[in-house]
Amino acid sequence: MTDTLTPAPETHSLIASDRVEGTKVYNRKGDKLGSIKNFMVDKVSGQAQYAVIEFGGIFGMGNDYYPVPWEMLTFDTDKGGYAVDLTKEQLENAPRHGMTFPEYDHNYGRRVFDYYGMAYPYPYI
Amino acid sequence: MTDTLTPAPETHSLIASDRVEGTKVYNRKGDKLGSIKNFMVDKVSGQAQYAVIEFGGIFGMGNDYYPVPWEMLTFDTDKGGYAVDLTKEQLENAPRHGMTFPEYDHNYGRRVFDYYGMAYPYPYI
Repeated sequence: MTDTLTPAPETHSLIASDRVEGTKVYNRKGDKLGSIKNFMVDKVSGQAQYAVIEFGGIFGMGNDYYPVPWEMLTFDTDKGGYAVDLTKEQLENAPRHGMTFPEYDHNYGRRVFDYYGMAYPYPYI
Repeated sequence: MTDTLTPAPETHSLIASDRVEGTKVYNRKGDKLGSIKNFMVDKVSGQAQYAVIEFGGIFGMGNDYYPVPWEMLTFDTDKGGYAVDLTKEQLENAPRHGMTFPEYDHNYGRRVFDYYGMAYPYPYI
């Protein structure tokens, strides 16, 4: 029955969670890099922390999954996708995983944010 | 290929977007009310604003979809689902829609938050 649902809309400011999943990811030049597999949300606050990006071998990276801080993504209304500043060099040593997702605890989170030179913004509760 | 993925985990604080979808919703007594269809996220900030709940006829409400402010949901670790304070009376006139999702703009948002007696916390941009 859910298959016959009209897809939830994008508005100027909101997007449905199941529309983010599968959304294309581009670099700033507009080249398609991959797509968003899913994203990790704080259960209590509802704040998205990471998008998990599947690069699909575009950089010769195989089909690994890359957690990327949500703040690194910019929604590009024209393309209907997310833009991100990521180079092949950045991704070569970036945190990634295969088909088995790791435990995204605070230690893992710090590692991801540190890698991209960003302060880890979430308190250890 | 994605079908063979090990499901993304829940940690003590994070949950994967595609695991929120389908998560059961209970009332405070622990009765199952329905499940989460999806949730609406601010594209820029990554903040979840509404969960869209399918009550599945539990209150004789048919299979309509009810947008409910994220703040009304509490994650219950024991049950692995969300708890929400909602009575049949509250739902009788609550904002809802059928298979076609409405445009979740600020006017709609105000209507939903107003209905549940909550201040609409998002600026008109």
